[in-house]
Amino acid sequence: MYVKILYIELMNFNLKHPLCFLLILFSAQLQAQAQKKYVMVIHGGAGTILKKNMTPEKEAAYVAVLKQALQVGYDQIHSGKSSLDAVEASIHVMEDSPLFNAGKGAVFTHDGRNEMDAAIMDGSNMAAGAVAGVTVIRNPISAARAVMEKSEHVMMVGPGAEAFARQAHLEIVDPKYFYTRERWDGLQQAIKEDSLKAVLDHGSKKSMKLGTITKDYKFGTVGAVALDQAGNLAAGTSTGGMTNKKYGRVGDAPIIGAGTYANNATAGISCTGWGEFYIRNVVAHDISAMMEYKKVSLAVAAKAVLEKVGKMGGDGGLIALDRRGNVTMPFNTEGMYRGTVTADGKIEVLIYK
Amino acid sequence: MYVKILYIELMNFNLKHPLCFLLILFSAQLQAQAQKKYVMVIHGGAGTILKKNMTPEKEAAYVAVLKQALQVGYDQIHSGKSSLDAVEASIHVMEDSPLFNAGKGAVFTHDGRNEMDAAIMDGSNMAAGAVAGVTVIRNPISAARAVMEKSEHVMMVGPGAEAFARQAHLEIVDPKYFYTRERWDGLQQAIKEDSLKAVLDHGSKKSMKLGTITKDYKFGTVGAVALDQAGNLAAGTSTGGMTNKKYGRVGDAPIIGAGTYANNATAGISCTGWGEFYIRNVVAHDISAMMEYKKVSLAVAAKAVLEKVGKMGGDGGLIALDRRGNVTMPFNTEGMYRGTVTADGKIEVLIYK
Repeated sequence: MYVKILYIELMNFNLKHPLCFLLILFSAQLQAQAQKKYVMVIHGGAGTILKKNMTPEKEAAYVAVLKQALQVGYDQIHSGKSSLDAVEASIHVMEDSPLFNAGKGAVFTHDGRNEMDAAIMDGSNMAAGAVAGVTVIRNPISAARAVMEKSEHVMMVGPGAEAFARQAHLEIVDPKYFYTRERWDGLQQAIKEDSLKAVLDHGSKKSMKLGTITKDYKFGTVGAVALDQAGNLAAGTSTGGMTNKKYGRVGDAPIIGAGTYANNATAGISCTGWGEFYIRNVVAHDISAMMEYKKVSLAVAAKAVLEKVGKMGGDGGLIALDRRGNVTMPFNTEGMYRGTVTADGKIEVLIYK
Repeated sequence: MYVKILYIELMNFNLKHPLCFLLILFSAQLQAQAQKKYVMVIHGGAGTILKKNMTPEKEAAYVAVLKQALQVGYDQIHSGKSSLDAVEASIHVMEDSPLFNAGKGAVFTHDGRNEMDAAIMDGSNMAAGAVAGVTVIRNPISAARAVMEKSEHVMMVGPGAEAFARQAHLEIVDPKYFYTRERWDGLQQAIKEDSLKAVLDHGSKKSMKLGTITKDYKFGTVGAVALDQAGNLAAGTSTGGMTNKKYGRVGDAPIIGAGTYANNATAGISCTGWGEFYIRNVVAHDISAMMEYKKVSLAVAAKAVLEKVGKMGGDGGLIALDRRGNVTMPFNTEGMYRGTVTADGKIEVLIYK
């Protein structure tokens, strides 16, 4: 297998000299043998996350929840359960924590509501499920999975999606459940800045826009990608969207191909960032397509696609795991809450660059 | 340019012999010179469209509206306006006609409502806009364009999208405007078949599903792709979704990358068919990615991607136009309402295989 993979990679670099080929083959084979096999990767959002703004307590709290999310997902895979089970279980931990912008702790819309989106995809059969604009489902990722498994649809939005979730016996909560003081204060701050901005921009073309995006209020999605013992990939993403969002705005998280995608032939991907740019670039599918059609590695494809987002003016990050257990977690922001667990159970969590 | 294109295509077929290369080059060059340049392509939905079920009057009515939609779009391009203008104007004609499942004539949801979705994309800068689940906007394609041009968002759903449309001064109508007797009867028929099916399926695994899809009630989307004098591509799609749909189901039409996509580097694409399969296969973007990364022609890519949909059990069709004015309109159903107009203004309309 190494020979085949290496040959393809060498072809891309046009290093066709037989001696060169053998040399690289030998060293890369040694490297591949030593390479870790990752079974799960998660993120808790990218954005302006700077060490100087973080207290040791807050940092420890984030690290603890990320570790717990990885442990829970690892336990599923280790016990022989599916990558879908691992992704769902891991995202539950982050949705249930007030620290992340998903489930409990979701940001508020302009109208003071918590409107959440989520998607999940099964790389083994390319089945997918997504919900958008839901307000009473405790774990939106489970609603996405129910859409995939208990209906013939892929996407459901708003009150219709909630009616489906009730009939699928998912846990329904009072919208107050999602309230956190920090997110509420965040909305008040955003509204204040927004009205200030509107005054400053008075008469300019910018202020004519009905839906403007306030910098640094656009991040915080959570996501997970897992590879199970059967070799199946799954990816999931869950988010509260953007603080102060209006007009039923939907970002990339619940859009299959944009924020979430999984395909056993290539990789599983979950994105976080300025969703509009991720939709326009069909980021998650573009990484998969580049791997499939251009025969480049996961890391090369992910880097190239994130560069497209950056060139267009967008920012954020993503996590991706391929069918051989290679992982990549690029981002073009100050930081991204992220972590991995390898087949031996070793957990690693990172926050800054 | 021909040399470069041909060389790339030959590489894919591994026909590297110099003589073979020259021979094919010569014949293909002659062919290319004679090839028509299409400036616009439209569809009015794919499905079980059989000549034996069609009256001459009904057929003439469809042909007339398709020709009008093409003429209106052509006039925009011919007068120097943008491909976006052409796509919007052309889709207006089909949205305003009760014959197609978009705007006036949209199918009914299970609850007896008309919930519409639309998307538009500008291939010159990859800007995009989409709305889903809107019930009072006369022309959903214009709402999608307003989201793209008058907000920083890409997608808005439900009442939020309608509030935005009002503020953007789009035409708002009473939901009754969308009523047609034929679609209402279609819903009653679907509900009857559904309850019959539920009885027949009683106790089987299938009947446990909450959202099932009734065959032949899933089609009828409209779409347009145009290439303007500046060489810019644009694509748009508008739909009433699926008769008897429940739970706020959203199909592929408003999903950028699935049912709608445009990129000047490759092509503009608009899809129609069993939306769930189009979302899972990220159809429109997959065609573009295959052209970009695998260096295959528009027709080869579109055929390959539609085959993926078919293999998974999905059906439908699509229209696509590349930056050189090549067009392809594959479908794996009995028929697809479709038409083209070339740079010289010649209109062609087709319905059956």
